[in-house]
Amino acid sequence: MSMNTFGRVLRFTTWGESHGPALGAVVDGCPPGLKLSESDIQPFLDARRPGTSKFTTQRSEPDQVKILSGVFEGRTTGTPISLMIENTDQRSKDYGEIAQSYRPGHADYAYDAKYGHRDYRGGGRSSARETAARVAAGAVARLVIPEVRVRAWVEQIGPHAIDYARFDESLIGTNPFFCPDPVAAEEWARIVDAARLAGSSIGAVVTVEATGVPAGWGAPIYAKLDADLAAAMMGINAVKGVEIGDGFAAATLSGEANADPMRPGADGKPEFLANHAGGIAGGISTGQPVRCRVAFKPTSSILTPVPSINSAGDAVDVRTKGRHDPCVGIRGVPVVEAMMALVLADHKLLHRAQCG
Amino acid sequence: MSMNTFGRVLRFTTWGESHGPALGAVVDGCPPGLKLSESDIQPFLDARRPGTSKFTTQRSEPDQVKILSGVFEGRTTGTPISLMIENTDQRSKDYGEIAQSYRPGHADYAYDAKYGHRDYRGGGRSSARETAARVAAGAVARLVIPEVRVRAWVEQIGPHAIDYARFDESLIGTNPFFCPDPVAAEEWARIVDAARLAGSSIGAVVTVEATGVPAGWGAPIYAKLDADLAAAMMGINAVKGVEIGDGFAAATLSGEANADPMRPGADGKPEFLANHAGGIAGGISTGQPVRCRVAFKPTSSILTPVPSINSAGDAVDVRTKGRHDPCVGIRGVPVVEAMMALVLADHKLLHRAQCG
Amino acid sequence: MSMNTFGRVLRFTTWGESHGPALGAVVDGCPPGLKLSESDIQPFLDARRPGTSKFTTQRSEPDQVKILSGVFEGRTTGTPISLMIENTDQRSKDYGEIAQSYRPGHADYAYDAKYGHRDYRGGGRSSARETAARVAAGAVARLVIPEVRVRAWVEQIGPHAIDYARFDESLIGTNPFFCPDPVAAEEWARIVDAARLAGSSIGAVVTVEATGVPAGWGAPIYAKLDADLAAAMMGINAVKGVEIGDGFAAATLSGEANADPMRPGADGKPEFLANHAGGIAGGISTGQPVRCRVAFKPTSSILTPVPSINSAGDAVDVRTKGRHDPCVGIRGVPVVEAMMALVLADHKLLHRAQCG
Amino acid sequence: MSMNTFGRVLRFTTWGESHGPALGAVVDGCPPGLKLSESDIQPFLDARRPGTSKFTTQRSEPDQVKILSGVFEGRTTGTPISLMIENTDQRSKDYGEIAQSYRPGHADYAYDAKYGHRDYRGGGRSSARETAARVAAGAVARLVIPEVRVRAWVEQIGPHAIDYARFDESLIGTNPFFCPDPVAAEEWARIVDAARLAGSSIGAVVTVEATGVPAGWGAPIYAKLDADLAAAMMGINAVKGVEIGDGFAAATLSGEANADPMRPGADGKPEFLANHAGGIAGGISTGQPVRCRVAFKPTSSILTPVPSINSAGDAVDVRTKGRHDPCVGIRGVPVVEAMMALVLADHKLLHRAQCG
Repeated sequence: MSMNTFGRVLRFTTWGESHGPALGAVVDGCPPGLKLSESDIQPFLDARRPGTSKFTTQRSEPDQVKILSGVFEGRTTGTPISLMIENTDQRSKDYGEIAQSYRPGHADYAYDAKYGHRDYRGGGRSSARETAARVAAGAVARLVIPEVRVRAWVEQIGPHAIDYARFDESLIGTNPFFCPDPVAAEEWARIVDAARLAGSSIGAVVTVEATGVPAGWGAPIYAKLDADLAAAMMGINAVKGVEIGDGFAAATLSGEANADPMRPGADGKPEFLANHAGGIAGGISTGQPVRCRVAFKPTSSILTPVPSINSAGDAVDVRTKGRHDPCVGIRGVPVVEAMMALVLADHKLLHRAQCG
Repeated sequence: MSMNTFGRVLRFTTWGESHGPALGAVVDGCPPGLKLSESDIQPFLDARRPGTSKFTTQRSEPDQVKILSGVFEGRTTGTPISLMIENTDQRSKDYGEIAQSYRPGHADYAYDAKYGHRDYRGGGRSSARETAARVAAGAVARLVIPEVRVRAWVEQIGPHAIDYARFDESLIGTNPFFCPDPVAAEEWARIVDAARLAGSSIGAVVTVEATGVPAGWGAPIYAKLDADLAAAMMGINAVKGVEIGDGFAAATLSGEANADPMRPGADGKPEFLANHAGGIAGGISTGQPVRCRVAFKPTSSILTPVPSINSAGDAVDVRTKGRHDPCVGIRGVPVVEAMMALVLADHKLLHRAQCG
Repeated sequence: MSMNTFGRVLRFTTWGESHGPALGAVVDGCPPGLKLSESDIQPFLDARRPGTSKFTTQRSEPDQVKILSGVFEGRTTGTPISLMIENTDQRSKDYGEIAQSYRPGHADYAYDAKYGHRDYRGGGRSSARETAARVAAGAVARLVIPEVRVRAWVEQIGPHAIDYARFDESLIGTNPFFCPDPVAAEEWARIVDAARLAGSSIGAVVTVEATGVPAGWGAPIYAKLDADLAAAMMGINAVKGVEIGDGFAAATLSGEANADPMRPGADGKPEFLANHAGGIAGGISTGQPVRCRVAFKPTSSILTPVPSINSAGDAVDVRTKGRHDPCVGIRGVPVVEAMMALVLADHKLLHRAQCG
Repeated sequence: MSMNTFGRVLRFTTWGESHGPALGAVVDGCPPGLKLSESDIQPFLDARRPGTSKFTTQRSEPDQVKILSGVFEGRTTGTPISLMIENTDQRSKDYGEIAQSYRPGHADYAYDAKYGHRDYRGGGRSSARETAARVAAGAVARLVIPEVRVRAWVEQIGPHAIDYARFDESLIGTNPFFCPDPVAAEEWARIVDAARLAGSSIGAVVTVEATGVPAGWGAPIYAKLDADLAAAMMGINAVKGVEIGDGFAAATLSGEANADPMRPGADGKPEFLANHAGGIAGGISTGQPVRCRVAFKPTSSILTPVPSINSAGDAVDVRTKGRHDPCVGIRGVPVVEAMMALVLADHKLLHRAQCG
């Protein structure tokens, strides 16, 4: 079941609503003895934090994490790690008018249809604010896999993709778009700002890569590494598509063009001459970089009126005022990284369980 | 954990290898009192069955299902339903030469890296033959959701997509490609045959649609309907990409273009004026058709030699002889349907558990 | 997995240590629309609260619960309910000396053997203080099963059992022993006080009964109601034995003596003429009261020195100073009730999932 | 959920009814590379097999196990191990008359109340015959824990207990009662035969001990080793009570009397001077023998008429003819051993996952 829990061996449970007193995560199954303090987590929350540029929502949250359990004398004890982030900037009035109206593209109607009752303040549990708890949990997961390096970036905003010939990883953290291409970063500034000023929004594609993953992680048939990654990524707010390796492009190829030839490499391990597969075969890592692309739809909350209905069933026009990200995919980058780290850490432990 | 089990309330466990004596599924959590016999399952296995045209593998398996438990006097009892399919056409010699060599694009190397030991006959557990067990389980799932109609088709083979202006659902079952477009079906016959004759292979995209799903199925945050669908689809052999609704195309749109406006409809329910979201918002069904696209890579088993290594670490050229599907996506159609049915049936019961 | 999570559909995860800043529970899967506030939970925590008489530990904790999520406008939303209890009376110095020595009968040595590192303050995670989180979760579970009444009492302290001829349920809440027999209550006061003054401790047996459980809850084979109850009860700190119905006494009986004859009752349901089975047959409730007996060992923390070793492997004599319950079974009563309520609520929802 | 699945990392799912074509188990998560053939499993099934003496049911089943998957070239592959046992001696007529009447003490009424429909042949899924599948799975589990020795025996039949002064483990396999006391074995022969001839039945207590379990297995709080054992044992047909170590007797003791003092032993590990705790503290193994007592009620199926009702709600007298064990606890011995092995193997892998 585990509706608000993710993972198999390293499991985390998140709780909390956009406008409640706090939100948090409980991380269970973490190995003991790992050095952990708030300062290991905070930088990742800071990367996701809203209000850091005009290209993200102006909600201002310090997103300060507190560790409430599971750490003693600076090291994990193997017991549940409870992480809490208090909500401090809850301007509920901004959201009051959506109490009765269903915002198209949002979960408002679906929640009401399911539960007959919903916390409409800021989307309640369906708010992307919940992803802060995932980012906190993901920071713990990174400590479980020190051999792995996880890095994500925005690859495309609207139809405007980066040029990989200009890819410079060192740029990712230096602009508000997690953009590795300096030319695209400038173009995106214009595009996102235009969307923001027009009361509109725009979609994005995020790419994530994990290097250092050894061959052998992942567990067929229904705990495949790629299947777990797909669930992890598709479960992020606003995500509508996931690809491993070449993804949909692979469907257009012939078997020869899609092959990842091997030749003898170091330590008796294969050296791969291509990575169409994105580092996963048969649901198990091959030792190549694990690569995943994630499509974010444009933010549904826009100032442009959209026809809708209210909870009484009447026709209304909905304009979503308040503070919103014009491109929700941007702040998705730390979330995508967190989910990648969580899935990999989980599978490292799962592999160790079965295969020693 | 549940490495070979899928589902939350309606759970199924599959077992078996390509060249072992049999394979099967145990379906647990099925409601009692449903009429069920082998004849409810066999047609779906027949649709997936190999050897029915020159466009699929020439392995000839009757894939006859037997119900070993969980049914009494023609109705389910609520206890586990054990389904078994015996393997009858196991020409192990076809596969003998891959005992030592790793086929590029296959799970051979990854299995050896993980387990240090593998059943190399026909890929063993990593064979797509395992999906027969899913199709059998999916037939049971359909009985749990009589209100839902699940239908999949091939939308694209290689770069050649159907034209939706010619979409005719009644054609899907009448050609070897599950193709709803008569023109595309003819084109694909030439393309797939050419790939087959060239000892090559080709990728495909399958689309699946479920109509009749009421609003309210799906359970945030980590049991979202779309996340579960993504895991279900990405876990199918050869799948490299999954989209819900517009998927990656949504990333290129503005918020207005991607909106699904609503107006008052029958029974106080909304009538949607578009379905970019693919019938899911916030991880919960909206009452619209649930729509998913699935990308299959080209079959890795090709006659064209590809550089690889063997288990001793030496360089080898691998040509995969034997009987293979030139386009594995085609026979993926019944599997995609089965996984959609299984996820929906599971979520119907999960919703009933929490929300009555 | 779910090491710190219990339940199948209604699941709760607890976190926190005896001397950390707080402890808590996250309750997932709760139906929406139930009225819930802190005042529904606090009375049960007050019943378990330490320091209320000289017969329990003198640690003084208000055990004030806060609801951090999952409730909106006074009703549950169907999203996770986060409950937090802050620790306020943490006299760590009391426990300082056990940092290096293993208290016999405690989890000290086992935790070190497992994790190589432990929070020794007050037993850390192994402290019975964790059960406060279960009691809080149990209060939520009660709201899920309004048709059921759960009531526990102490049946025996040391070898001194109550006389059921004097059983008066109304007395249970009126004495510090949850004792339904006025004579036994007086005797126990002398016995427990003597143990306390002698720096000793004493064991107890708690009986719990749930009335109003309809026939049909419980799910064979490995989710049997009695198996889940056994796990729930045996997992409580200091518990060493669990019986359903007649338990070990049934082993001494003949088939005739152990039979629960039936005759036609109201509504076509059977009227049972005995309840040796404790209301469960084949792992499924029969409609009779569900009855369970739980054995608590004497508190391991005693002032009398016991030979032990320290973490360096040297021989030491351990006297456990600090504030302890002379009879830990007494405060086990609200915990046993909570676990019964949690198991029943979980099985109500599970039954609804499969059987509608 | 996992209603017919048990375990956390090493998981097994059983299926099958008493009078269906077969029953079986699927064991998932087994480490790869273990030598396994039918001959590793058959001896344990033979020990449980009916019809071997006049003291057990006269149903005659060879209980021949077949391995259908998960083993290649004599070793486990890490994929699911499917085990099947065909039913061969199904005299359905024996059971025909209970189709409409509810046998007191049986699951008949509870199954009907839950599912509205049941396989009444031999109790269907509620038959103790299902435990054959557990015994088969348990044989696999033993291979996962070669360092552990699991041994069970009957300690008591009716009120007649063995005298531990005469305990001789070598006798256990030499008499039809798994009795380690030669005097008790003779006494039990008279008692059980008398019960059989009188058309009655009698209860029993089984004790199981596992030696060689290292300190550190078990995972607090809700995956405690003792809690999992309690669930495993209470879930066996006819079991009504479970004790770890001294169990209910511990409730009568003082803290001093119940203490397990330690002194320095070999390898820096403690040497324990007593084992009241049954080898488990805080839910984690201490390195001492893990000891558990299990109470079996008398077989409910007796020839003596017992008042009951039928499915129409009418009063009937039920005499259960057919072939039954006069003391079901006897054949419980291999089942108790199997469950102990399964729980320990599971926790070995779980420990390895988290703690390396």
